[in-house]
Amino acid sequence: MSEETTSVHYINYLQLDKVLDAQHLISDIKGKAAHEEMLFIIIHQTYELWFKQILHEIQSVMDLFETDKIDESSVGVVVRRMDRVNKIMTTLVGQLDILETMTSLDFLDFRDHLSPASGFQSHQFRKLEVMLGLKIKKRHQLGGCPYHSQFEGEKKEEILNLEESDSLLALAEKWLERIPFLNMEEFDFSKKYEEAVNEMLEKEIAGIKSANLTEQDKALRIRMIDENRKYFERVLDEKEHNKAMQEGETALSYKATMSALLINLYRDEPILHLPYQLLRSLVEMDHKIAAWRFRHVQMVEKMLGQKIGTGGSSGQGYLKQTVDKHKLFTDLANISTLMISRSYLPELPKNIKDTLGFNYKK
Amino acid sequence: MSEETTSVHYINYLQLDKVLDAQHLISDIKGKAAHEEMLFIIIHQTYELWFKQILHEIQSVMDLFETDKIDESSVGVVVRRMDRVNKIMTTLVGQLDILETMTSLDFLDFRDHLSPASGFQSHQFRKLEVMLGLKIKKRHQLGGCPYHSQFEGEKKEEILNLEESDSLLALAEKWLERIPFLNMEEFDFSKKYEEAVNEMLEKEIAGIKSANLTEQDKALRIRMIDENRKYFERVLDEKEHNKAMQEGETALSYKATMSALLINLYRDEPILHLPYQLLRSLVEMDHKIAAWRFRHVQMVEKMLGQKIGTGGSSGQGYLKQTVDKHKLFTDLANISTLMISRSYLPELPKNIKDTLGFNYKK
Amino acid sequence: MSEETTSVHYINYLQLDKVLDAQHLISDIKGKAAHEEMLFIIIHQTYELWFKQILHEIQSVMDLFETDKIDESSVGVVVRRMDRVNKIMTTLVGQLDILETMTSLDFLDFRDHLSPASGFQSHQFRKLEVMLGLKIKKRHQLGGCPYHSQFEGEKKEEILNLEESDSLLALAEKWLERIPFLNMEEFDFSKKYEEAVNEMLEKEIAGIKSANLTEQDKALRIRMIDENRKYFERVLDEKEHNKAMQEGETALSYKATMSALLINLYRDEPILHLPYQLLRSLVEMDHKIAAWRFRHVQMVEKMLGQKIGTGGSSGQGYLKQTVDKHKLFTDLANISTLMISRSYLPELPKNIKDTLGFNYKK
Amino acid sequence: MSEETTSVHYINYLQLDKVLDAQHLISDIKGKAAHEEMLFIIIHQTYELWFKQILHEIQSVMDLFETDKIDESSVGVVVRRMDRVNKIMTTLVGQLDILETMTSLDFLDFRDHLSPASGFQSHQFRKLEVMLGLKIKKRHQLGGCPYHSQFEGEKKEEILNLEESDSLLALAEKWLERIPFLNMEEFDFSKKYEEAVNEMLEKEIAGIKSANLTEQDKALRIRMIDENRKYFERVLDEKEHNKAMQEGETALSYKATMSALLINLYRDEPILHLPYQLLRSLVEMDHKIAAWRFRHVQMVEKMLGQKIGTGGSSGQGYLKQTVDKHKLFTDLANISTLMISRSYLPELPKNIKDTLGFNYKK
Repeated sequence: MSEETTSVHYINYLQLDKVLDAQHLISDIKGKAAHEEMLFIIIHQTYELWFKQILHEIQSVMDLFETDKIDESSVGVVVRRMDRVNKIMTTLVGQLDILETMTSLDFLDFRDHLSPASGFQSHQFRKLEVMLGLKIKKRHQLGGCPYHSQFEGEKKEEILNLEESDSLLALAEKWLERIPFLNMEEFDFSKKYEEAVNEMLEKEIAGIKSANLTEQDKALRIRMIDENRKYFERVLDEKEHNKAMQEGETALSYKATMSALLINLYRDEPILHLPYQLLRSLVEMDHKIAAWRFRHVQMVEKMLGQKIGTGGSSGQGYLKQTVDKHKLFTDLANISTLMISRSYLPELPKNIKDTLGFNYKK
Repeated sequence: MSEETTSVHYINYLQLDKVLDAQHLISDIKGKAAHEEMLFIIIHQTYELWFKQILHEIQSVMDLFETDKIDESSVGVVVRRMDRVNKIMTTLVGQLDILETMTSLDFLDFRDHLSPASGFQSHQFRKLEVMLGLKIKKRHQLGGCPYHSQFEGEKKEEILNLEESDSLLALAEKWLERIPFLNMEEFDFSKKYEEAVNEMLEKEIAGIKSANLTEQDKALRIRMIDENRKYFERVLDEKEHNKAMQEGETALSYKATMSALLINLYRDEPILHLPYQLLRSLVEMDHKIAAWRFRHVQMVEKMLGQKIGTGGSSGQGYLKQTVDKHKLFTDLANISTLMISRSYLPELPKNIKDTLGFNYKK
Repeated sequence: MSEETTSVHYINYLQLDKVLDAQHLISDIKGKAAHEEMLFIIIHQTYELWFKQILHEIQSVMDLFETDKIDESSVGVVVRRMDRVNKIMTTLVGQLDILETMTSLDFLDFRDHLSPASGFQSHQFRKLEVMLGLKIKKRHQLGGCPYHSQFEGEKKEEILNLEESDSLLALAEKWLERIPFLNMEEFDFSKKYEEAVNEMLEKEIAGIKSANLTEQDKALRIRMIDENRKYFERVLDEKEHNKAMQEGETALSYKATMSALLINLYRDEPILHLPYQLLRSLVEMDHKIAAWRFRHVQMVEKMLGQKIGTGGSSGQGYLKQTVDKHKLFTDLANISTLMISRSYLPELPKNIKDTLGFNYKK
Repeated sequence: MSEETTSVHYINYLQLDKVLDAQHLISDIKGKAAHEEMLFIIIHQTYELWFKQILHEIQSVMDLFETDKIDESSVGVVVRRMDRVNKIMTTLVGQLDILETMTSLDFLDFRDHLSPASGFQSHQFRKLEVMLGLKIKKRHQLGGCPYHSQFEGEKKEEILNLEESDSLLALAEKWLERIPFLNMEEFDFSKKYEEAVNEMLEKEIAGIKSANLTEQDKALRIRMIDENRKYFERVLDEKEHNKAMQEGETALSYKATMSALLINLYRDEPILHLPYQLLRSLVEMDHKIAAWRFRHVQMVEKMLGQKIGTGGSSGQGYLKQTVDKHKLFTDLANISTLMISRSYLPELPKNIKDTLGFNYKK
């Protein structure tokens, strides 16, 4: 055991000499230190540190998906890491409250010095978006230039390479496609599900027709059911689904959609519980990132009103567009459209149920 | 002292016999109690209790504004009550996390029984919207009927009366208009501010022209400054402002806008600090209500996907529209557009400064 | 379908006529309505509503444990319900921020009218404590009377009956005892674990002895290891463990402790992941209740300082005692003391590993 | 304008090359990278960044107090900065949720490499404690060595110097002592307050005596009043107060206590509102730091159970002691003990009231 071992000190271990010496106020360099610039620097640094952590987790999750280990004991690991990412996102949303203690007047004390720097230049956040699955063509454009024009050399190349690689979204889709539940022995999930959906819809319509309602009300409710029916039809017919994909209404493959649906419907089976938690955690992450973008817009509104951003963007205008447009896992959230009540849920044959359960009882 | 006095018991004081006996599961009445319906009922009841509290606070704030007491010691009271409303809103947003533990499958166990009930029928929330200043014509329409068709008798009348009365937004505007700071003795705020703005814009343009930038970059930045200039021009010229009001670009009167600007610029003067906190708290409330609507949309997406709402609304579609459209205090947030750096801020004459400070030093 | 079906209205469904008509200000009855009393009533009512929800969840979890269903698909259900309880607790802690907007001066406007009512009289909270496992003899005494003297008739009897019934803590212990993992075929967990612990301790001591440390430092570190060793010894020897139980150092049976340890060590095995989440959620609930008590003390300190409570308690003094003393699942948290690094963890034989995994691959 | 001006890039401005290159996993250096060590490093770095920000704010507040500027427009500035510190503390408490996603088993993958490093060696946190007012003699001792033995050279000297300088607590006390409200013209606050207290206590006792209560209940309530009375007596008699100071029951000077009481009682007067917010923010900070310590104990319990800390401390034992013992602003919180209801509050003479209000109405 070397001497080094025996002398780990908190300050060295955390490299605080570097981390705590990285706050040089530009207002100070320009001649008049602005008290509030410290906060501006430090909060951005904490964001970047957390982005590094998120990338660390997402990369590890993608590695697990890629090596196919995900089918077995790794699902638990992935769920825990996604849960961590989501807890980090909660902190990132919450700590905007700190930045909002810096008001418009405070910010103007040093804002002019920053141009043209902009949060848009966060390399890590761009990487994260691409790794999760945000393709350049789906991205909301800011001015004429592609987003990666903000970067040069290695940093640019890294982003471009990631654009070409499998994203988390793509890897999750592949995982869903290879899960071996859709055709279990004598149980044909699609067929059983279709029967259940039809039974449900017929019963709902019959209920409305015999109900003590005005004709107008009846018509309204039947229209509602018809509206929902189109989602069912899409998933009940692979061709319809593929057409919807071509028309950009969904991006998740037919097989992956069916798997996700099965997992959601039968999540109480022990073997499906962790996969269910995994799907849920992806939707949760998507929502938390959207919530962060949303609160970001509010923060900018308070701080700048309609002022133009330092990077030349229309400030909150650009950010506002990304809240919805940069969502990636909407198709997984939309599985809820296809859910049917437990009372219609096709019962699994006993031997299948045993297969999906644990076998430690024997 | 009556015997009654001596026997206050927690359970009676809080009327828990009523409050805790108001959860009758409709799924139970229909024959099969759904475990999760309890949560659905209880969380909505807590929302309604908190709405009652918010109405209690907002009403009291409006009363203070109306009796003109607001100019003096009441500003502190208003600030504290608005702060309370905002803390309640934080809880209301946060507790959506609880409802999200109820998943799609759970909800379907009793959802059918609920139709056509809908959160849209919350009388208190409609009242709140109207009291804050949401006029029927500004409201996002749901189907063909006006929103108050959901209510009858007294409840309907109450809403209609509120539509006719001064809202919090209107009362805050009047308060801003009567604050006696715009023409203080020899200090003409508008004139001084105009000079400062012009000085700032000229200096910024000169800086860009002499900078080591490409012509393209220079043109871009000058366009940005011109973009901001139009907001300044509006506030520097009452006619421009009134035109903008007619065109629906702003709703706050010229005089109120100028007062709000002055308060934001000189908030460090002791007398203006509480008014500043008050303006800030109104924007904060607006943002928190919007954040609640936003998270509500996300919750519905997880629970229902694209399913139609029980009340016949397009579910998340309707809610999504209200996030932005039902914002009310945007003009106060947009004051930030008009802020200028402290280095350009016209200095107050000493006698004015004394007037705005406290006089306990003599 | 009856007419009733067709007319569910939000206001009736939630029985808002009762819930929103249960706020009668005692200060108003006494002649001078105190604005802040409304908050005091409403926040307590939301607390009671949430307590009702927590009791609903805890009772359902206890029912699942009792019917032995817990071994199979119910573990997922229990985990989800405990997760909900924990999210509710997060809200209950967070919303103390709202109550803290009511200051000392505000509270004194109506406090005198409340005596002798006291939060100590919350029947639901007492029930919750007892159901979780807080026995009367473990409870911090307030004055001379047993806590159930606050209640009469049915309410008192209910509490006394619960004292006699199995608590959640007891049911969790039984569940741990019956989980069939400790003696799996040829794998004797206790023996393997003992060997691993001894190997680890010897290696640690050897490492210290050969390290470049002062004799003083070496002695210090070896003392630390010896300190930890006593926890290992207790769990490695059933008699030691039983002695520790008699001396009140632990309350969890030997077998349950071993099971909890095994689950924590091998939580990555698919079959153990949900049991792990379950154990974790119990500790989390315990911590969140303690956090709520802790923040409660702080709130009282701000509001009353050292004033005596309305119920005659020493105010924060009593509450402070319960933070630590009323913790119930400490033995589950303390399993962490017994954890050993993965590098020492005895590997499971392949056939056991398969047993603990899923069998859907074949 | 130099070229430098025109090329500020986000990555350079934030010195991300340093900040994001400061995470070297010791487990990696030792041969086997532990996935979870990244989180351990990054979260500690964010804590240190936030500590730097808190020190920045506290130092600026102390500077304002020292230059005596605090009496005038600076109170608003101080309130805003303390509010920021408190929002940071909220984040620091909340983000413990992230660290808790790292479990015991995960931590053991790299924990051995860390010894003897320990959070106890955080120089910034020690500085903060000393700057706020935690004196070495009040500090809970860890082992035999004084806490500053953890540091050397400049870092040690800095701490020792701070021990000798005025703390925030001391500066706040001086500020309270010099506020010129206690003897305003003909209004002798102490005397008026004493009369009010006596009137209140007499009325309370008379009320109890004439109430329809058992003799036992009456005796109990009168004992409660007597218990409160001793706090009043202390503040009504300077000698009593000084004696209490000598006995360690309070640490705040008589004059400062009286000023704090006056501010709390008359906080609705405009001139006293910001001072009130300031006092409140100090108590709030104290509570938030305590809450952070408390949650820290819980996190350690989950992660280590009763294991000994890497720095040789008894782990949660040491931390638990500091929760209460390191509180500093308890005397300000305890002002609540001395509050009397508005109905007993001595009315201010009109000319005083005007003095405390603003004079912009003339």
